[in-house]
Amino acid sequence: MGKYLVLQTDFGLGDGAVSAMYGVAHMVSDEVVVEDLTHDIPPYDIWVASYRLLQTVKYWPKGTVFVSVVDPGVGSDRRSIVCETESGHYILTPDNGSLTHIRHYQGIREVRAIDEVVSRLPHSEESHTFHGRDIYAYNGARLASGEINFSELGDVVSQDSLTYLDLIDAKEENGILTGSIDVLDIRFGSLWSNIPLALFKQAGIVHGDSIQVTIFHQGKKSIKIS
Amino acid sequence: MGKYLVLQTDFGLGDGAVSAMYGVAHMVSDEVVVEDLTHDIPPYDIWVASYRLLQTVKYWPKGTVFVSVVDPGVGSDRRSIVCETESGHYILTPDNGSLTHIRHYQGIREVRAIDEVVSRLPHSEESHTFHGRDIYAYNGARLASGEINFSELGDVVSQDSLTYLDLIDAKEENGILTGSIDVLDIRFGSLWSNIPLALFKQAGIVHGDSIQVTIFHQGKKSIKIS
Amino acid sequence: MGKYLVLQTDFGLGDGAVSAMYGVAHMVSDEVVVEDLTHDIPPYDIWVASYRLLQTVKYWPKGTVFVSVVDPGVGSDRRSIVCETESGHYILTPDNGSLTHIRHYQGIREVRAIDEVVSRLPHSEESHTFHGRDIYAYNGARLASGEINFSELGDVVSQDSLTYLDLIDAKEENGILTGSIDVLDIRFGSLWSNIPLALFKQAGIVHGDSIQVTIFHQGKKSIKIS
Repeated sequence: MGKYLVLQTDFGLGDGAVSAMYGVAHMVSDEVVVEDLTHDIPPYDIWVASYRLLQTVKYWPKGTVFVSVVDPGVGSDRRSIVCETESGHYILTPDNGSLTHIRHYQGIREVRAIDEVVSRLPHSEESHTFHGRDIYAYNGARLASGEINFSELGDVVSQDSLTYLDLIDAKEENGILTGSIDVLDIRFGSLWSNIPLALFKQAGIVHGDSIQVTIFHQGKKSIKIS
Repeated sequence: MGKYLVLQTDFGLGDGAVSAMYGVAHMVSDEVVVEDLTHDIPPYDIWVASYRLLQTVKYWPKGTVFVSVVDPGVGSDRRSIVCETESGHYILTPDNGSLTHIRHYQGIREVRAIDEVVSRLPHSEESHTFHGRDIYAYNGARLASGEINFSELGDVVSQDSLTYLDLIDAKEENGILTGSIDVLDIRFGSLWSNIPLALFKQAGIVHGDSIQVTIFHQGKKSIKIS
Repeated sequence: MGKYLVLQTDFGLGDGAVSAMYGVAHMVSDEVVVEDLTHDIPPYDIWVASYRLLQTVKYWPKGTVFVSVVDPGVGSDRRSIVCETESGHYILTPDNGSLTHIRHYQGIREVRAIDEVVSRLPHSEESHTFHGRDIYAYNGARLASGEINFSELGDVVSQDSLTYLDLIDAKEENGILTGSIDVLDIRFGSLWSNIPLALFKQAGIVHGDSIQVTIFHQGKKSIKIS
């Protein structure tokens, strides 16, 4: 078991919310090292949260515990879950699609439903909207510190019972490559697509070739670049 | 005594100022763990600084040392102070109102004035404008690490001698609730008022009721929402 | 040797890039403490990166290892280098001018060229664009943790062989002070010039005097303030 707890949210860093998550984690254990994935996920954007997990989790030591809280359904009856990935990492998150990319591209070993009544920050029952602190940071720190183990967080649930977002697999047909634009890197002016280098090679496209790009948005052709 | 030092400023994270505060803290002691409350307090906004302390301090382990530097009066003769809160935390800050909410809602045990001549980063006498680094991070780290204790930071001063901002207490009269809007949560489109749930219950207002809201700004009615 | 690794980039904190650098550093060693200088260097702005190092490095414990990745030439044949400063700190960076201010104002003891084939994150050979993670964070953590020492990172190269940006030294002639505006502090509305207080004293200018300021941009007079 690692001692790292890594937090991802859409809270931003402008108020004390993330700091309160750190504080709760440190109250659980003074051994756990808390770090950030990012707190600038666009508000409620589960897709981006799922994608950032895919990009980042594998670069952390095995056993690292991730908390991802982009949670438009907080206060509803959406489940809180924890998974162990095939890569040997743990992720605590609302069951809302945040595990979509990790499951599809890297694989999940087992998922458990967190019991939100038993497993929550003591005396936090009256707070209905800050599960990031009261459920996720609290339980993430307990897991990262070894105070509890994975199986103590709740009962196993089937992977198929989880909520997933729709993915479009990249493919090559008759020299045409199709895929999705997963995320925009506005800071450096790039688009990130899910079309791997191997498909370009398969289609005989090499560095320096001109290609025609058509971009669809919600089924409609929106941009054509030659 | 905890080993945590938690920093709050209005410096932003775009330059090296916060990093220099971290570095100075680590030069004092390699045992102290430095974390952030936030560094995005709007420049000079003492009210928000005071409010963020109220929201966050209690979620950290007892003994945690906070430094809050929103300091329009740096270079003037405003005092530097350190307090021990009723909750068992320490806060170092300029005496400019940053302790207003903590004192009113959570309580302070004792306040001391920091001797800025004796208790400052060695060889920093020529820097008149970076007390965040030379006075606050430096002394905060000494306190968090146990190099000195609370009473060694300076002499006791009375709580009444401190500078405070004006607060409007929430109240209920004839079914009308009055309070203040303490802070805007622009990221998620919410207003945070200081009217507690208990007052709504006392006025017989339940979830789902329609209420009429009148917002005053500096004494003038500015918005009426029905 | 210190145990601190301090990261500076122009990546921003909106995606998982900085977090992946942290993760790689923690995979190298669970002893290294990773902190930030800033990640908001304007994209590709080597001048600002160089300036922020000058401002910040000296406030960290001797032996602290800095990684500065503002790297418009990633993927080209620009070298990766590591230096030991006169102040006893280490900096790993692309050889693109990022050491300009540190060398001029504080001094460098020795520079070595990092062998990017031998000294890189295992299995990262296919990644051509994320040297921040695969070369700099990886080797920075090895150096900070003591897994390797400075001389094991590569062969000595001459300081004169490095790339430097042009600096304009501050001077006083006939009561006229000349210098450069090194950086804008937009958050607080200040300009930072490289004209030291000593030159003002030498010219007989004291606090409260009115002075006439002329600002040149790329050789043309652009603003005159009386």
